[in-house]
Amino acid sequence: MTEKLLPENFEFEGPYPRLSRRLRLGVVGGGRISATQATAARLTDRWEVTAGALSSDPDRARERGAEWFLPPERCYASFGEMAKAEAARPDGVDAVMITTPNHLHFEAAKVFLEAGIDVLCDKPLTNEVAEAEALVDLAAQTGQVFGVGYAMSCFPMIRQAREIVAEGGIGKINQIHVEFLQDWMTPEDVADAPHVKWRLDPKISGPTSCVGDIGTHAAHLASFVSGLEMTELRAEFHVCGAPKPLEDTAFMFTRYAGDVPGTLMATRLAPGNRGGLRLRVYGSEGGLEWDLENSERLKFVRYGEPDRMISRGHGHGVSARTERLVRAARGFPEGIIEAWANLYMELAMAVAARKDGIAAPQGWVGFPRVDEGAAGVRFIDASVRSNASGGAWTKI
Amino acid sequence: MTEKLLPENFEFEGPYPRLSRRLRLGVVGGGRISATQATAARLTDRWEVTAGALSSDPDRARERGAEWFLPPERCYASFGEMAKAEAARPDGVDAVMITTPNHLHFEAAKVFLEAGIDVLCDKPLTNEVAEAEALVDLAAQTGQVFGVGYAMSCFPMIRQAREIVAEGGIGKINQIHVEFLQDWMTPEDVADAPHVKWRLDPKISGPTSCVGDIGTHAAHLASFVSGLEMTELRAEFHVCGAPKPLEDTAFMFTRYAGDVPGTLMATRLAPGNRGGLRLRVYGSEGGLEWDLENSERLKFVRYGEPDRMISRGHGHGVSARTERLVRAARGFPEGIIEAWANLYMELAMAVAARKDGIAAPQGWVGFPRVDEGAAGVRFIDASVRSNASGGAWTKI
Amino acid sequence: MTEKLLPENFEFEGPYPRLSRRLRLGVVGGGRISATQATAARLTDRWEVTAGALSSDPDRARERGAEWFLPPERCYASFGEMAKAEAARPDGVDAVMITTPNHLHFEAAKVFLEAGIDVLCDKPLTNEVAEAEALVDLAAQTGQVFGVGYAMSCFPMIRQAREIVAEGGIGKINQIHVEFLQDWMTPEDVADAPHVKWRLDPKISGPTSCVGDIGTHAAHLASFVSGLEMTELRAEFHVCGAPKPLEDTAFMFTRYAGDVPGTLMATRLAPGNRGGLRLRVYGSEGGLEWDLENSERLKFVRYGEPDRMISRGHGHGVSARTERLVRAARGFPEGIIEAWANLYMELAMAVAARKDGIAAPQGWVGFPRVDEGAAGVRFIDASVRSNASGGAWTKI
Amino acid sequence: MTEKLLPENFEFEGPYPRLSRRLRLGVVGGGRISATQATAARLTDRWEVTAGALSSDPDRARERGAEWFLPPERCYASFGEMAKAEAARPDGVDAVMITTPNHLHFEAAKVFLEAGIDVLCDKPLTNEVAEAEALVDLAAQTGQVFGVGYAMSCFPMIRQAREIVAEGGIGKINQIHVEFLQDWMTPEDVADAPHVKWRLDPKISGPTSCVGDIGTHAAHLASFVSGLEMTELRAEFHVCGAPKPLEDTAFMFTRYAGDVPGTLMATRLAPGNRGGLRLRVYGSEGGLEWDLENSERLKFVRYGEPDRMISRGHGHGVSARTERLVRAARGFPEGIIEAWANLYMELAMAVAARKDGIAAPQGWVGFPRVDEGAAGVRFIDASVRSNASGGAWTKI
Repeated sequence: MTEKLLPENFEFEGPYPRLSRRLRLGVVGGGRISATQATAARLTDRWEVTAGALSSDPDRARERGAEWFLPPERCYASFGEMAKAEAARPDGVDAVMITTPNHLHFEAAKVFLEAGIDVLCDKPLTNEVAEAEALVDLAAQTGQVFGVGYAMSCFPMIRQAREIVAEGGIGKINQIHVEFLQDWMTPEDVADAPHVKWRLDPKISGPTSCVGDIGTHAAHLASFVSGLEMTELRAEFHVCGAPKPLEDTAFMFTRYAGDVPGTLMATRLAPGNRGGLRLRVYGSEGGLEWDLENSERLKFVRYGEPDRMISRGHGHGVSARTERLVRAARGFPEGIIEAWANLYMELAMAVAARKDGIAAPQGWVGFPRVDEGAAGVRFIDASVRSNASGGAWTKI
Repeated sequence: MTEKLLPENFEFEGPYPRLSRRLRLGVVGGGRISATQATAARLTDRWEVTAGALSSDPDRARERGAEWFLPPERCYASFGEMAKAEAARPDGVDAVMITTPNHLHFEAAKVFLEAGIDVLCDKPLTNEVAEAEALVDLAAQTGQVFGVGYAMSCFPMIRQAREIVAEGGIGKINQIHVEFLQDWMTPEDVADAPHVKWRLDPKISGPTSCVGDIGTHAAHLASFVSGLEMTELRAEFHVCGAPKPLEDTAFMFTRYAGDVPGTLMATRLAPGNRGGLRLRVYGSEGGLEWDLENSERLKFVRYGEPDRMISRGHGHGVSARTERLVRAARGFPEGIIEAWANLYMELAMAVAARKDGIAAPQGWVGFPRVDEGAAGVRFIDASVRSNASGGAWTKI
Repeated sequence: MTEKLLPENFEFEGPYPRLSRRLRLGVVGGGRISATQATAARLTDRWEVTAGALSSDPDRARERGAEWFLPPERCYASFGEMAKAEAARPDGVDAVMITTPNHLHFEAAKVFLEAGIDVLCDKPLTNEVAEAEALVDLAAQTGQVFGVGYAMSCFPMIRQAREIVAEGGIGKINQIHVEFLQDWMTPEDVADAPHVKWRLDPKISGPTSCVGDIGTHAAHLASFVSGLEMTELRAEFHVCGAPKPLEDTAFMFTRYAGDVPGTLMATRLAPGNRGGLRLRVYGSEGGLEWDLENSERLKFVRYGEPDRMISRGHGHGVSARTERLVRAARGFPEGIIEAWANLYMELAMAVAARKDGIAAPQGWVGFPRVDEGAAGVRFIDASVRSNASGGAWTKI
Repeated sequence: MTEKLLPENFEFEGPYPRLSRRLRLGVVGGGRISATQATAARLTDRWEVTAGALSSDPDRARERGAEWFLPPERCYASFGEMAKAEAARPDGVDAVMITTPNHLHFEAAKVFLEAGIDVLCDKPLTNEVAEAEALVDLAAQTGQVFGVGYAMSCFPMIRQAREIVAEGGIGKINQIHVEFLQDWMTPEDVADAPHVKWRLDPKISGPTSCVGDIGTHAAHLASFVSGLEMTELRAEFHVCGAPKPLEDTAFMFTRYAGDVPGTLMATRLAPGNRGGLRLRVYGSEGGLEWDLENSERLKFVRYGEPDRMISRGHGHGVSARTERLVRAARGFPEGIIEAWANLYMELAMAVAARKDGIAAPQGWVGFPRVDEGAAGVRFIDASVRSNASGGAWTKI
């Protein structure tokens, strides 16, 4: 194929270029998460949704596909079938998003990789460490693009935070604290609700509920911004409120590369907290604080100076690299859909570059990769082992 | 045409239904604003951009159109030509967005209305009151859908505020204060920048610069939430900092229906304010406060009780009507693009309903209409006359 | 008198020294305001309350005095009597605070000045401009210390703001906005409450109610921080809610020396605002924002840089001069009583210096003076005249 | 002695009455903390400082005493001497505050108790559990008033929080999180500073530095508001930044009566945090959040309703009981000195009541008592043992 997707003379440093056509995206899994992600993909104008496996019931799959304006012949009832058929089409999908329940991630990702189709898989990457490692290997062998849906790392202020740390803005890191607090499981009867049940069923959700869902976001964000791998943890799981088969709350002590200590907390029973993902990194010369519920601002402190408040937007402390991820002018708020769109924009560039035979540098397409997904699965696994051992320090 | 766009059995009270096809949107005007709006339109999945008049230079028009993946034959170099050609096509655009410089709004809107194509026009609607009134009349005659780009009124928390007022939540309104503060004109040399020059050129921008751009947003929001028409004002225009042909700052006393007093302020020279659109409505039993830079929260006070902070999302004080405009869960932030998307969603419903021969109720598709656009032009005009008279009270 | 109050070798640049004895303070007026101020005076440990005219009824005066642990012979039923008796005592009061209703300020201040006793008078200084000017003259003739109770100017962050402006931190001032919003007059029946009635009685409160009480605080603060005199205004008074003999709300356009424009607003019917005194000063290079309800932080913006948030305390952007007014460590909050205590501390130094025959430099004892009090009365007077004229521009 | 301190007919429910004389306060320990407390004591107008043991060097003791206007004969060079002499005087001190370095608390408290003088002792109460328990016993035997300086529990919003919990406002408690973050030990060389050295010297500071200083405040606050005793913990101590003989940072998992889980964190190396004492209590029906750096507001959430923000002041969700501790009107900020003053006010009432032979009910004089101080020492001790054991769960 001589089609070139990226323009001739673009710069890896500049803004993201238009492609010669919209990339074709397949959707695997038909819930609310896929709708949000498709929204974000469309927002970039680098993708169009052209095929889907939205249900295992063929009629339901076609019906849902029609809502997405998909032609009936590209509405599949199984992802295996979809991978095969799409790989065979000249206009087959360039990539798929996988947003099935957790226990199907591995099989789905594998089959699309093997069909030569790039993948963006939701977190947790898999329910088993071995599966996650298999996917890392497979992606390495095939050279496919493989992103993981840690969209929180795609907020501009998080990228700015990462840059500040990397440039030594807070000195040597001394401690890292991260928490993700929600409140929607507060009602005593919530665990029986249909959309909640699968999240508490170990067969589907995996060995954890809260940790695998939101705890892993927290862990990823901490490593992403600090640039430090989490190496050890001790965890205690709790069920607050009504009895449940899996934890709804977890507290952890953590240790990062270089023996940096920290804490991590995740719960869904903290009334008044909706998206309370809060990261705090403290170093020998300063500190950084960010809160998802106030995602447009980054508190950056140089010890001995007034606190600084950096706002998403242009200039005023925002780097050129971060500005690449900015759409609306300063003061006009952006949110989670735009964060997802940043991920889809970077993914589009990586997919296009691969097809054009170019290696897009990580600094330009900084979306989370399969190895970060595998680190997340190891984090979950270590937390389960630590909790089972009464909270012993456990290697990740 | 027997094609039906809306589904058979939808409810005007419920969520917005899928349409039987994506509506076709034409873009008139090729700047950053059209890009934001197209992004928002795509986000709804109820629209696709299919034609454009993106430049008066035919080559440039085609070139830009290609960036939007438009076929060359639907890239027009004039909106007159576009209106004619699209009206003649069986797959012609259902509606256009008009985002040209201000002085072209009238002519463009007129020509599309006359061609039977629905319109969403940026604010200020026109530069002359007579033109605005002509558009109101024309829209009434043709029965076309005619929206105006007061997107600030499409934030969920603003809709919630409007409902609270309408239901008597703050009692009888005593005073209304609104301001829109920005800071990007602070640098002494900014007025010479190419993208700024037209905003200070009376031939293009009209009789005002700051008032017509952001002051009119403030005035619209105040009326939208309070449900009260602004009837009179006294205005003083200022040029702060470097000399400029038009005002960069304006202060006003205002009066609303029922003799309710208020103030209005707009400036682009308030360092530290990016999107400082702030509305405060105080009544005999309570008050409401909202700030664009913190758009996800609405402060609602019942006098004598603790302050309440309502967050965008589901439940917790958010009405079913407001929830219709909510995509991301509570705590996962939304922003200006989502506000625009709310406008495009409601516009899509109104356009689809008209084509289906149904009148969509205002409570279901509450986007700002041509008469609100005309009120904005009268507001600008009154402010110019008041300022010229040394700040006399002037009827709107 | 050979007694020296200040120590031998103190520096006008350093912290405030201990005095050789506590200064003796007389209290004129027995309401809640005097209690707050006495609290603040005690807090400095530079004052003790030793005499009072706390009621015009001799029994009541003694009774109240007993609550303050005053000896019966120093509980006076008239301030004339008090001035005479205290001036004659070897241990007579060094200074008095005057916190009577407004219409008695002039007579009281005059009689103490004439008796050689220093004065701190509440605002508004007087109800008439001529009276205010007479007090300025009298203070100049006698060389007495004469402070005025604009305690808002004694918050450390306000002092820091003033310094930043003076040092050019925000460049040339372009506009000044100040407002004081309260909500306690919201209930329809509040005007009949005993403690409210006098505030709405022109014979006692003077020609205004809200303007003279809180508007004058706002006006003083704006001039204090900006270093610019207010020269002109146009004002409109309103009665929101229940009818009242005097205004409860006022809106103004203002002009400061050098033709700097601004706005000023004061109201007591803004539900959700308790102490909403907010100052915003914008210049050619940056801006400053401060809010009484968040008095420990000062937003300071240099255009083009991240916002800075300066916190009361030591270092981190706080000048040595400001630190002189800091008691509790950073992060341990201070409030309005400490602001009053700053005023009483500076007053003590000025009184002691005068008695020692030394002129304390204004930069060391920066409390508001009688001429600032007179400026406040002229501001009130101009606002009354402007409002009466239908809001014409009126010289102050 | 037939002197009665409290008035005849006061109510235990009402505001705190004037006493027939100011109580006499002795000061033991001459640093900055005693100055703050004396300031607060004076603020109540229920106390005067009349004697002190401000240094073990007699000359220095007299010199410092002179700064406090103490007569030379009541400036003692040892607290033993002071206790004896003051107990013998007819006008001897009614109570002492003990603000010496930690290792002297026990001996000082004991000697004053034995002399019949009431005590307010700084935290940590002692450096040894046995000493703390001995003081509890001694206070019980003598019936003396014995307060402990956990002043954070005397903020009105904390008292309000405690009431809300007690009345079931958040339902059954599910989890408790508390942290105290400061940043002043961030500089690498701070540990050598003279005023810091003793805080890191185990002989003076006791077995911990950060935990005993600020961690114990956090632990007390959590129990105070939740009404639940902390029963177990697992702790890890850290030295972040420059090496130090004692921990500067500690992380804990905690367990409260009824098996309620929680976390606790204390550090002095969190740049950007000055007084970051933050308490969060989450229950089955709602949540409470409070932050010392924003001490005037209490976030109170009933799940399913808008967040509520209660402000210190009168009405608007503040109980009559809490209002007793309010001086300045709503919107006029109070701070840490006022919190201390609340403690001294309640202490005065308790001391006066004891002397009058009355038992003041705990609900009226809710200041922290010696048993709470002993609980704090046991908390510190358990944290040391847990840390030494590698973070094992340890009974308190």
